[in-house]
Formats: sequence, structure tokens, C-alpha cells
Amino acid sequence: MRPDTREHILACGGQIIHHKGFNATGLHEILQAAGVPKGSFYFYFKSKEDFGLALIDHYHDLFAERIGALIEDKSIPPLERLKRFFLWFHEYFAQEGFIKGCPIGNLVQVLGDVNPVFREKLNASLERLILVVATLLQAAQDQDALPARLSPDSTARFIVSAWQGALLRMKAVAGPEPLDNFITIIFEVLLVPYP
Amino acid sequence: MRPDTREHILACGGQIIHHKGFNATGLHEILQAAGVPKGSFYFYFKSKEDFGLALIDHYHDLFAERIGALIEDKSIPPLERLKRFFLWFHEYFAQEGFIKGCPIGNLVQVLGDVNPVFREKLNASLERLILVVATLLQAAQDQDALPARLSPDSTARFIVSAWQGALLRMKAVAGPEPLDNFITIIFEVLLVPYP
Repeated sequence: MRPDTREHILACGGQIIHHKGFNATGLHEILQAAGVPKGSFYFYFKSKEDFGLALIDHYHDLFAERIGALIEDKSIPPLERLKRFFLWFHEYFAQEGFIKGCPIGNLVQVLGDVNPVFREKLNASLERLILVVATLLQAAQDQDALPARLSPDSTARFIVSAWQGALLRMKAVAGPEPLDNFITIIFEVLLVPYP
Repeated sequence: MRPDTREHILACGGQIIHHKGFNATGLHEILQAAGVPKGSFYFYFKSKEDFGLALIDHYHDLFAERIGALIEDKSIPPLERLKRFFLWFHEYFAQEGFIKGCPIGNLVQVLGDVNPVFREKLNASLERLILVVATLLQAAQDQDALPARLSPDSTARFIVSAWQGALLRMKAVAGPEPLDNFITIIFEVLLVPYP
């Protein structure tokens, strides 16, 4: 068995689940897409639910790999890095047609009530995102680029809530308006110093 | 059959579904809670999915009945009415232990991918909420109580996104922090005139 079989099953299964939803996706569809037998799946995952938990980490690592360097790039002002972070996701969701929602958020919404482990995992995932945002806001504040009325931690919590809600509205609208609206209000109103 | 049997089934079934989730709730549990036979259920609802759609309207009407008067009360300044609107829901979710989430939002998250009718219904439900918020913001602007940097419509869209996201984070945190954070940033930062 190839060492990357686990990742391969996650990547193939994740695409179907992102498209069809977790509950509507059968194990046989995951096996078929990945081209592996059932035994191979159960070698890596205890159950379909266990696979769902692993998918959350899979997507987290995927996004971290793709945009981690941008977040760390100190040649760009912190608030500009934050804006590009959300613009990157705007482009990602545009390519997905704005209808599938956030692959991590979807999983947690479906599985969050099934199992307290999922609630903890959602919270940990959101707290990681809050920390990324708060770190950039703190860096901006250290450079006097953040309005004094804003605390980095509570503003980061608010921005992450507003982003999750914009993604939820995006699914309802099936279009870019909620993400455009989020980026405009955050970067042209909330984070702007008083004139 | 009593004329309010339909409402009675919705109220009893809604409580179980809000607690256990739509997919995890069996039809027999809805029948048992309402104390009605299966034929009575199918007299009013074509299917469990149809019942889910009707529940969205049920909750909308319930909330409109309980807080509609506050929204219309012109003796209270518009932004104060808006704040009390969210504080009312804060209290509602506190009584539910902060863990069950929004009954309407939950239904739509679970059913939104099943059926395009649900996506339309979610969008209509969110647009109604946006209109309530935008109307209050417009009234505030007419009284010069809204900062000129804020457009009532796009600010209302942003506030509704941020609220939905705060409710999502509330489910993850299982506590009041996300709703407290929302109320603080919206009413002590975003909607506050420049000093």
C-alpha cells in the first residue's frame, strides 16, 4: 500500500463530500472515486464518521499549505495580508461556484450534533483561525495601523464570526454578494482609522 | 380534528428536532410527542421534508409574534430597538443553553443541499431579516443617528451575516461569548459615530 494512500482517499472522498454532502455520500462512492477496496479504507479509518473527522484536518492542512506563506510574509503590511487571505478564499469559493460552502464548516454543521468530538474539533478549528487573524491585527496595532478602538482578540473573534456567517449566506444566495459585502465592510469600514 | 392540530404537531415536533436534529429525529418521535396518529401527520404534511419546510415558517411566525411589537415601537430610538432585538435572541438562546443553535439555521443547514426549495427558503428567510435590520438602520439614518459611512442596506447584510456566524460559533463554544462579542462590536464599535 502506498504511503500516501490515506491522503489519496481523503482528497478523492473530500471532493465528493464537498459536492454532495456528508450524509448523502455513500462509502462505495468514496471507494470508487479513490479506486481502493473497502479493506484499504478501514485500514486508515475506523468508520465513515472517523473519516469525516480526518477530513477536517485534511482541509485545514491543505489551506495552511496554500496560504500559510502569505500570512507569514512580513514584507506585506499585516492588514493587507489579512485582506489577501480573505480574497484568496473568495477566489477559492468562486471556483467552486459559491454554492458548496466551506468544506470544514459543512462537515461540522452536519456532524457537530452527532458527536461531542466534532463540536470540540469545530471550536479548535475556529480558534486556530481566530489566532491567525488576531496575530495579524496585533502586528498591525504594533505598527499603529489598527484603530485604537479595536482590541485584536475581540475584533478577531468578530471577524471570524462574520466570515462564517458570510459563507452561510453565500450558500443561500449562490453568488458572491455576501463575501464581497464582508470584504467591503471589514476593510473599508471596521478596520479603517477615524478620518 | 382540532383546527390547531397542525400547529400542535409543529410545536411538539419542532422541540424534538431543535434538540436532536432533523435527521436524528424519527417520525414516530414526532407522532409520540404530539400524541397524534400517523394519518393525522400525513393529513397536514406530505413528508418529513415537507414538515421541515413548514417548521421554518412556524419558527418565523413564532419569533415575529414575540418580537414584532418591539421592532415597530416608535417610542424607542431605532438603534436601541435593533439592540433589544438581538438581546431578546441572546436571552432566548441562553434559555436553550447556547448549544442547540438557531432552529431555522439548523434546518436549512441540514436540508439546504437536499432540495433547492430549501435554499430558496433560507435565502428568503435571511432577506426578511435583512429587511428588518435595514429598515431600522434607515430610520436611524433619517434621524441622523447612523454614521454617514454606513449604507443601511449593505450594513444590514453585514450585520445579518455576522449574526448567523455568531450563532454558528455559539454552537461550537457552547457558551455566550460569540453573542456577547457580536453585540459589543456591532453596538459599541460599528454603529457608533466617529468621536
